[in-house]
Amino acid sequence: MKPAKSIRIRGKVLGGPATLVCAPLVGATPARLLAEARAVMRKGPDVLEWRVDHFRDVADTGKVIATGRALRDAIGDVPLIFTRRSPREGGQPTTLRGADVVRLYGAVADARFADFLDFEMSHDAALVRQVIDAAHRRKVRVILSSHDFKRTPPVRTLVRRFLEAGRLGGDVAKVAVMPRDRRDVLALLQATTEAHAKSRIPLISMSMGPLGAVSRMVGGLFGSSLGFAVGAASSAPGQPKIADLRAAFALLERMQAR
Amino acid sequence: MKPAKSIRIRGKVLGGPATLVCAPLVGATPARLLAEARAVMRKGPDVLEWRVDHFRDVADTGKVIATGRALRDAIGDVPLIFTRRSPREGGQPTTLRGADVVRLYGAVADARFADFLDFEMSHDAALVRQVIDAAHRRKVRVILSSHDFKRTPPVRTLVRRFLEAGRLGGDVAKVAVMPRDRRDVLALLQATTEAHAKSRIPLISMSMGPLGAVSRMVGGLFGSSLGFAVGAASSAPGQPKIADLRAAFALLERMQAR
Repeated sequence: MKPAKSIRIRGKVLGGPATLVCAPLVGATPARLLAEARAVMRKGPDVLEWRVDHFRDVADTGKVIATGRALRDAIGDVPLIFTRRSPREGGQPTTLRGADVVRLYGAVADARFADFLDFEMSHDAALVRQVIDAAHRRKVRVILSSHDFKRTPPVRTLVRRFLEAGRLGGDVAKVAVMPRDRRDVLALLQATTEAHAKSRIPLISMSMGPLGAVSRMVGGLFGSSLGFAVGAASSAPGQPKIADLRAAFALLERMQAR
Repeated sequence: MKPAKSIRIRGKVLGGPATLVCAPLVGATPARLLAEARAVMRKGPDVLEWRVDHFRDVADTGKVIATGRALRDAIGDVPLIFTRRSPREGGQPTTLRGADVVRLYGAVADARFADFLDFEMSHDAALVRQVIDAAHRRKVRVILSSHDFKRTPPVRTLVRRFLEAGRLGGDVAKVAVMPRDRRDVLALLQATTEAHAKSRIPLISMSMGPLGAVSRMVGGLFGSSLGFAVGAASSAPGQPKIADLRAAFALLERMQAR
């Protein structure tokens, strides 16, 4: 798969003029996950993300696959991101090690219920390569992501992370960082703008927590192609409600048309 | 009058936790101005600004004063900014020269229907001093303002302008600039944040035009104490509707509370 500035998946365009709204799913059991998916679907998200690190039986690949297939049936044609986030990058603790995650991701790519796999860039380069290869064999896209729940690195470091995702062969680059003050929020937006001008793939970015919430609202103007909003439960600090995020996007559009 | 980080006027606080919404009035005749004021009042602005450069008889000080008094009757206890903007800084052409403007401002300060006089920092320092003295004698506040309709200067220049307004004795510093790209919008916000940390007076800032409209929405988070919104007619490019600006502020507040 060649890198592309915008990606069309199931009728949605990531990296197009509209910022997409993604809601995470964090159910711990198949029943809870499917109930959550049905509840969130009523709020009309553009994209869903299954945060599988919240799933109790994440180490049981067969169960993950069966649940993923049921999830696909429940959500119809909504694009789905499959994500196991490590505790270091804001995820729930699991028994999985790097190589286990790669095996799980490979099986998920083969099962083809997900459109994107989100994998952390901080993994060994060899693991990143394996995930990308397994995904691309099945025409599944890879989001290479980087999280910092403690701080916001300088603009140049952030830009490097975005561009590194593309260099490693990712289809989408995601950077999420925690601000300590308002300047950090502006740094994230500035890095997004600079990386957007140079990157050949869509970007996703956010400054987390209450201080950074504004970045979720306006990030689209600076080159972020997707924003996360709470469907039934939050998966990271600062996520707004789906309706509020949509209202903010509509207001921005109206205000810019004047 | 001593410089203060926040200013309480007629029950509103400029420089407090809430960003105030100000609507300009641009009626060319007393009848039109008063009709405009009554129409805009129904939209509930926090502050009104009489852009007297749009007033046909701006050179007739007696008529300006009489109209200002009638305007005060019409708007009750809403804080009022009195502003003659020069064409170079985005205003309508008038026959007034610098010294005429100072005389007009002095007469308006004496008449006390306005709470703030907005005077451009680009005037001679002597004129600025005269306006401030005339205003402060009557306990009227002065907004020292700076506009650039062509470009956005570098962050350090913008910060200097904000701080210069305080050094010159202004009660409020206003900086409005035109962005050429999204980075310019971030530069304005960054300068506002930096100046806000150093300034002893409230700041007002905006990045103009469609590209800068987002700054009107989020500027309050970065230290701008007041945003301009269209009441009946716009007075500068990029002004949103009052209701849209209020909706944006409410959304931001909700999103930051999560």
